[in-house]
Amino acid sequence: MTVRQLFGIDVPLIQAPMAGVQASALAIAASNAGALGSLPCALLSTDGIAQELAAIRSQTARPFNVNFFCHALPHADAAREDAWREALSPYYHEFGIDPAAIKPGPGRAPFDAASAAVLEQVKPAVVSFHFGLPSDELLARVRALGARIVGCATTVAEARWLEAKGVDAIIAQGLEAGGHRGIFATDDLTTQVGTLALVPQIVRAVRVPVIAAGGIADAQGVKAVLALGAVAAQVGTAFLLCPEATTSRIHRDALASEAALHTALTNVFTGRPARGIVNRVVREVGPISAKAPPFPLATAALAPLRAEAERRGSGDFSPLWSGQNASGCRKIPAAQLVRELTA
Amino acid sequence: MTVRQLFGIDVPLIQAPMAGVQASALAIAASNAGALGSLPCALLSTDGIAQELAAIRSQTARPFNVNFFCHALPHADAAREDAWREALSPYYHEFGIDPAAIKPGPGRAPFDAASAAVLEQVKPAVVSFHFGLPSDELLARVRALGARIVGCATTVAEARWLEAKGVDAIIAQGLEAGGHRGIFATDDLTTQVGTLALVPQIVRAVRVPVIAAGGIADAQGVKAVLALGAVAAQVGTAFLLCPEATTSRIHRDALASEAALHTALTNVFTGRPARGIVNRVVREVGPISAKAPPFPLATAALAPLRAEAERRGSGDFSPLWSGQNASGCRKIPAAQLVRELTA
Repeated sequence: MTVRQLFGIDVPLIQAPMAGVQASALAIAASNAGALGSLPCALLSTDGIAQELAAIRSQTARPFNVNFFCHALPHADAAREDAWREALSPYYHEFGIDPAAIKPGPGRAPFDAASAAVLEQVKPAVVSFHFGLPSDELLARVRALGARIVGCATTVAEARWLEAKGVDAIIAQGLEAGGHRGIFATDDLTTQVGTLALVPQIVRAVRVPVIAAGGIADAQGVKAVLALGAVAAQVGTAFLLCPEATTSRIHRDALASEAALHTALTNVFTGRPARGIVNRVVREVGPISAKAPPFPLATAALAPLRAEAERRGSGDFSPLWSGQNASGCRKIPAAQLVRELTA
Repeated sequence: MTVRQLFGIDVPLIQAPMAGVQASALAIAASNAGALGSLPCALLSTDGIAQELAAIRSQTARPFNVNFFCHALPHADAAREDAWREALSPYYHEFGIDPAAIKPGPGRAPFDAASAAVLEQVKPAVVSFHFGLPSDELLARVRALGARIVGCATTVAEARWLEAKGVDAIIAQGLEAGGHRGIFATDDLTTQVGTLALVPQIVRAVRVPVIAAGGIADAQGVKAVLALGAVAAQVGTAFLLCPEATTSRIHRDALASEAALHTALTNVFTGRPARGIVNRVVREVGPISAKAPPFPLATAALAPLRAEAERRGSGDFSPLWSGQNASGCRKIPAAQLVRELTA
């Protein structure tokens, strides 16, 4: 099956949904250039989703992808939250922050009935999910819209599970990928596999089309994953310097520096493993801390540190999401990057 | 530069040196099929190296590669050795082994003057090194033979260092690769990068030819790394079921089973991180144990457990080396595998 048949797009490229560093503008630019643009909804309210989708609808007639996290919301655990704040207490002291004044959130909301209702107004061509899939009932509502449903697998076992649930395509997310790992069937990070090894094994294990993600930064990378049997490449990091992305100045500077050569999977920013450039808090508290509360609760205690550090011009406490190959980051319009990636 | 110019071979393929699971037979078969066969010397005595090289010389006129580890030998530390044996004591008890009777070794010897003297008799076309490079003096002796010198890099920084030392080619060893990681510039495993991300970044960082290793298991994988700018692929795991390999029955069975879907980087077998199929000792003692003595000293305490478990038909304590993609393992002669990998 070609990407035209699957998604109605011209080139085998998906602009990866990246919550926190993009909204509709990047999705619109990517879709209008013939790729599949993506809107990440994890950090948006239901109203925010509706507004961004309206913006996309008004500025492109092309297919686009709407992406949701579908984690189970954890119960707050006061003892664990206390331990986490205790671990961060030297930084509160350093920055003059009163930990008692820290507010809960920002949260990340999973896909729910309200999200489904918004989609029913907009009928996107593609809906993708991270951290598994929503309930069978919610999934049936998305299917009823006629949307192509895409799941994300980090292992062969996850790919088989997604296929059994009836997804139309599977993203094979290699270990190189930036941002949150889609891992959902286990907590064991030793199960995570590099893109070059993961893609052919998932291609062999399932019948649905496979999209490769992780470490793809230029046209040669796209060609390489197509050679492995993927129908398309999903590229995220390379878009982070585009003017249409909302990447912060601090994040952009880190991506353009040698610091981007060293990323790590860390749970200190949200409670789930995600890949970002190694900075002070990752080095000193992580990269993986047993004290971090479950996703997304770890974020709240870090938020004032991030805010104060950024106010001082430092990215020491910011999630500097990046894959293991930031060499493709270019300060060029997203449409031009789509052309170069698929040249 | 083509692989013919670089190594005098017909196809862009190196059969990876794999100490403990192959000797000259696999190297001869791979070289005679037009690839670059490799002899791993890490577990051989100087006499053993000379014998295996004589066997290769008598059975092929083609170029071949001789591979050495070049680690610094650690000082034995009685307290650390005691702690390691204490960690393994439940298993000694279970198997009825007297830990006081355990002999030192088996060791792994680094490249030294005696190794250089053997090479001077044989003058191989290619000499490759793992864990960095030997001393400048020893390296000059190898260079004086006219051999192409190949180093192994797991990061861009290691690749730059190798280039500055004057190597003729660099293996970019991605995180997917089986066996010992070549990492030498740091102990921080978060620096390790997937093949798809590592190869293009090293290609961009150095002027010497780059060989891709890690997760390459079939012709599509070879095509993919050539697309990334590598001049050749180095493939190991896929050869482990060939009749010319000396892979044990237990190891072969594990590679052919679903168990091979889950590998991990572990230091429990030797003291250095190496990728193998997750088995009981990796799960229960590792995958990374702070108690493991430095390479190669961790091996001795495990040896009697491995021997007794294998006698009982179990691979619970054996190093089941494998990369993250064992899907290319084929019970076919190495020459046929070379043809299929380069079809």
